[in-house]
Amino acid sequence: MAHIKLQEGLPGIRGLLVFSPETAKPMCDLVQVLLRDDHTLTRAEREMIGVHVSSENDCYYCQHCHGSTAAQLLGGSNDDYALIDQIKWDFEATPISDKMKALLAIAGKVQMGGKHVTTADVERARKQGATDKEIHDTVLIAAAFCMFNRYVDGLGTWQPHDPEMYVEIGKQTATKGYVNRDLSKRLESLATK
Amino acid sequence: MAHIKLQEGLPGIRGLLVFSPETAKPMCDLVQVLLRDDHTLTRAEREMIGVHVSSENDCYYCQHCHGSTAAQLLGGSNDDYALIDQIKWDFEATPISDKMKALLAIAGKVQMGGKHVTTADVERARKQGATDKEIHDTVLIAAAFCMFNRYVDGLGTWQPHDPEMYVEIGKQTATKGYVNRDLSKRLESLATK
Repeated sequence: MAHIKLQEGLPGIRGLLVFSPETAKPMCDLVQVLLRDDHTLTRAEREMIGVHVSSENDCYYCQHCHGSTAAQLLGGSNDDYALIDQIKWDFEATPISDKMKALLAIAGKVQMGGKHVTTADVERARKQGATDKEIHDTVLIAAAFCMFNRYVDGLGTWQPHDPEMYVEIGKQTATKGYVNRDLSKRLESLATK
Repeated sequence: MAHIKLQEGLPGIRGLLVFSPETAKPMCDLVQVLLRDDHTLTRAEREMIGVHVSSENDCYYCQHCHGSTAAQLLGGSNDDYALIDQIKWDFEATPISDKMKALLAIAGKVQMGGKHVTTADVERARKQGATDKEIHDTVLIAAAFCMFNRYVDGLGTWQPHDPEMYVEIGKQTATKGYVNRDLSKRLESLATK
């Protein structure tokens, strides 16, 4: 049971967004800019950063929502879902770009704490062609997931272990993103599922 | 030196806000809602939550900016600054309310990771009169500072150790808050100081 009274039937962050719409707005705006707006990293690549950090933070809800979103953005096949699982276990051994491996390494350092990021970590990314904006956004995405993971787990939210639910969330988010829609309405409709 | 090229003369998060105005907007909006808008916790109390978490995360810039802001909101005397320092060292031994001590204990758990918050932590806060909103906002403020601290340290920003600068920042923020002003203009003016 959650540590505070939340509307029933809304998993993970969704109950919190309904509980506190005044903070939901800037949080959704931030994640929309970071994960959805035009970028030299694909949407799937940016979701991978969130998945890696959420997995390291052991946040069940976030790693499965964003893992499913990343897999759906890649095409939604079983192989895509398997790739995301592999990234969580050992991203260095997966068939992603060397630039993405270097950026995920930076994200992993940010998860441990900002001071863990070294000049060598950043140089490795630069050698693979990472730009200042890509490095900046990697650090901020990782930092933002350290917030979202703590928000979701710190309030003891309901996090069902139903794979189908996460597939559905991944499909929705891959298509619609995080804002530009009636958030409350969408959350209400999820509550009645 | 910062890990990416930032405008010179802007300490801590300020260089990052200028580097990335599209993420600066929702981040400032979030902190404005959490730390400044009408609330049953005072502005100084909410700043204390950020100070405690920033201190635990060892973020020099954030703990001194928000420490100074909290002290200014309390009145700005040497005793006020001393109280903030004591909160960083051992908040349980300071002359703050029992409710604030319980909320700072929750914030400290969030800093370690969301799953560290226990039912007993939340019950302690409730026994001191904390509401659902106060518990929610404490968790989210703590989580947000885990983001801000990682953002500031993860990109290796310039963090001067000039006490006068932090007094000045504390005075400005205590008066003006985090948004509702021309952010770029203000940051530019700081750069030329």
